[in-house]
Amino acid sequence: MSVNILEICKRARAASYELAKLSEENKNAALCQMANALEANADRILEANQKDVQAAKARGLKASLLDRLALDNKKIGNMAKELREVSALADPVGKIESTWTRPNGLIMGLLRVPMGVIGVIYESRPNVTSDSAGICIKSGNAVILRGGSDALNSNVAIGEVLRDALTGTTVPVDAVQVVPSPDRAVAEELMGMREYIDVLVPRGGANLIKTVVEKSRIPVIETGTGNCHIYVSEDADLDQAIPIIINAKCQRPGVCNAAEKLLVDASIAETFLPKAIAALREKGVEIRGDQETKRIVSDVKPATEQDWYTEFLDFIIGVKVVSGLDEAIAHINKYSSKHSEAILTANFDKALKFIKQVDSAAVYWNASTRFTDGNQFGLGAEIGISTQKLHARGPMSIQHLTTTKYFILGRGHIRE
Amino acid sequence: MSVNILEICKRARAASYELAKLSEENKNAALCQMANALEANADRILEANQKDVQAAKARGLKASLLDRLALDNKKIGNMAKELREVSALADPVGKIESTWTRPNGLIMGLLRVPMGVIGVIYESRPNVTSDSAGICIKSGNAVILRGGSDALNSNVAIGEVLRDALTGTTVPVDAVQVVPSPDRAVAEELMGMREYIDVLVPRGGANLIKTVVEKSRIPVIETGTGNCHIYVSEDADLDQAIPIIINAKCQRPGVCNAAEKLLVDASIAETFLPKAIAALREKGVEIRGDQETKRIVSDVKPATEQDWYTEFLDFIIGVKVVSGLDEAIAHINKYSSKHSEAILTANFDKALKFIKQVDSAAVYWNASTRFTDGNQFGLGAEIGISTQKLHARGPMSIQHLTTTKYFILGRGHIRE
Repeated sequence: MSVNILEICKRARAASYELAKLSEENKNAALCQMANALEANADRILEANQKDVQAAKARGLKASLLDRLALDNKKIGNMAKELREVSALADPVGKIESTWTRPNGLIMGLLRVPMGVIGVIYESRPNVTSDSAGICIKSGNAVILRGGSDALNSNVAIGEVLRDALTGTTVPVDAVQVVPSPDRAVAEELMGMREYIDVLVPRGGANLIKTVVEKSRIPVIETGTGNCHIYVSEDADLDQAIPIIINAKCQRPGVCNAAEKLLVDASIAETFLPKAIAALREKGVEIRGDQETKRIVSDVKPATEQDWYTEFLDFIIGVKVVSGLDEAIAHINKYSSKHSEAILTANFDKALKFIKQVDSAAVYWNASTRFTDGNQFGLGAEIGISTQKLHARGPMSIQHLTTTKYFILGRGHIRE
Repeated sequence: MSVNILEICKRARAASYELAKLSEENKNAALCQMANALEANADRILEANQKDVQAAKARGLKASLLDRLALDNKKIGNMAKELREVSALADPVGKIESTWTRPNGLIMGLLRVPMGVIGVIYESRPNVTSDSAGICIKSGNAVILRGGSDALNSNVAIGEVLRDALTGTTVPVDAVQVVPSPDRAVAEELMGMREYIDVLVPRGGANLIKTVVEKSRIPVIETGTGNCHIYVSEDADLDQAIPIIINAKCQRPGVCNAAEKLLVDASIAETFLPKAIAALREKGVEIRGDQETKRIVSDVKPATEQDWYTEFLDFIIGVKVVSGLDEAIAHINKYSSKHSEAILTANFDKALKFIKQVDSAAVYWNASTRFTDGNQFGLGAEIGISTQKLHARGPMSIQHLTTTKYFILGRGHIRE
């Protein structure tokens, strides 16, 4: 299919200027239309999805990815529910963040405005199409969606349903555009459209994110990779520690806020590690330990240097014995992907030091890392979890898809 | 000279962790030491600068660039003054921006922290070396400075003086590092160090910024290009309008907040344009007009399509007659570099519409665009003026060189 990316980008930019003028009520009405349309057109979406699922089966796509790709009425219902939830969030656009007056009488202010055009490059889950569209529209942005080739038919169908739903609302149809091509060259062309796209958000695995970071000329927000650590200090409540470790590692091992590494103080390792490792193994977790861990629990597989950097996304955990808080912080700052880390301790000073010195988006005291999520933080739906420090760090909610502009009110002011 | 960029980056990262622990008093004391050292070592800096100036003269560098390159005691005094002024700014680091409690009892907060390591890539002005170092240290960041080849000796000497000054303070010496190489390959290696550098700020001309945006794998904040517009509405106070236009165009035409384009409503063009053009010509400004402007003032040079995109940085202005507010907004959103724009009108509704719909960092009502500047806005010293929407838009002060992290306080919390 021949695709004119420049035209898509120009239409998105034009739509963004229309969107920026709309009231919260206008945008909410459109989001509700979109939700209704998903439910009313479930059959059409499922039919397109079946084509993707059949093709993927024929190519031998593995079961876990097939599961992500396949839609059913319940998943479509959840997509609609998500749009309705986004419509209920407070609109950040139009807020005057601050005003002040300069000695020369100029009145200054900072106004919150939409970013403009957001590009989203993502992989197999078709629900990302409608979730991202909803978050972008609520924050006043036009969105260009480029999903993976596996889900092309599903994404195009969802895009058509959402665009049809926008007809007759005040939100321009081109606020939502799905790039109808699985071609890599098309994706790369999109990544060069700095003049038309204000920010690019990759959503998917480490390889996708790496490719976008390397090829994009548009500012990128790096999301998702979570090599998360739990550090058990010598003064931790050990009865609390094991449930937290099990929750962080096992509740959903395939997500970015799952724990991938366990660091334990040397002074408690002899007593604590055998218990913690037994509990993890009972849940089917493979242990990869450093030398000291292997000395204490001899049948542990040795961890490689690469393992300390790896986000396993599986029932695997790296375990290391550390001399204390300073070594734990240094290890985390060296190997972590800067997503989420936890300290388990009864000591306030240690917790405070850990919170201050660990260089990650979310730092926990006596809690599971699994809470790093827009809804769990009370921020509402998120478009990703940023692991970089520019603009947004941690869960990116609608607030983070906006920017500000200065307004300056004069009465003939000139600079001396 | 052989330069090990990886080692420079590792030292910067290590220094950043030490810097992040320091109090405001620690950082201010170091800044004052740096200021004193610049003054005490002026001769050493001037000697190095003379080498650069002689070499530049021999290469035939043009006078305006030689003027930027050459230092004297007064300029060094200003560099010291700038460091003392930065030390007097309020420290944004350590501020708790907000806290809230979740229904499950988790206590959440958002803590302001330094970015970490800032890279600055700049051109001929050696004062950027100490100005950037000061802003970065105050905001708790380590800085890697890569200046232009013209000023290599000057920048290295300033770097040495600043690093010597840090010895004996609590700020680590490696908080300030000057890359001692004019080699392009070295600059490109630096732009790939995403793991060690959190943000890259290019400071200089359009070509430098374009190169950094295209080659960098590190998040870049695009700064500086200012194709600024002044739009004179039919209901403008015309006595106010001419002084504003002259100020915006002529007070300092070589800077980014100078006006480059004048848009005038058709209904007043016949009477206003001859006066405005005469006033501009009296100051030596060349006029490049659209067809309608040429019809009214026949000896005007015709503007090319490219002229509407161009930041002249000179005594040149593009003049266009527009049908009204909507055309003015559309023209600006199409051609502007999204820096600073002004509307001159007595009509509040028009001013509000212009402020809301013009997609630029700073939007003025009845004032000269020349005020877009950290000090003029009351934000203090700036490291650049961002024309992108991510993270910082408009003058980037010390506040914009920080980020936030979430802290989450639990009592054994696990996710259900």
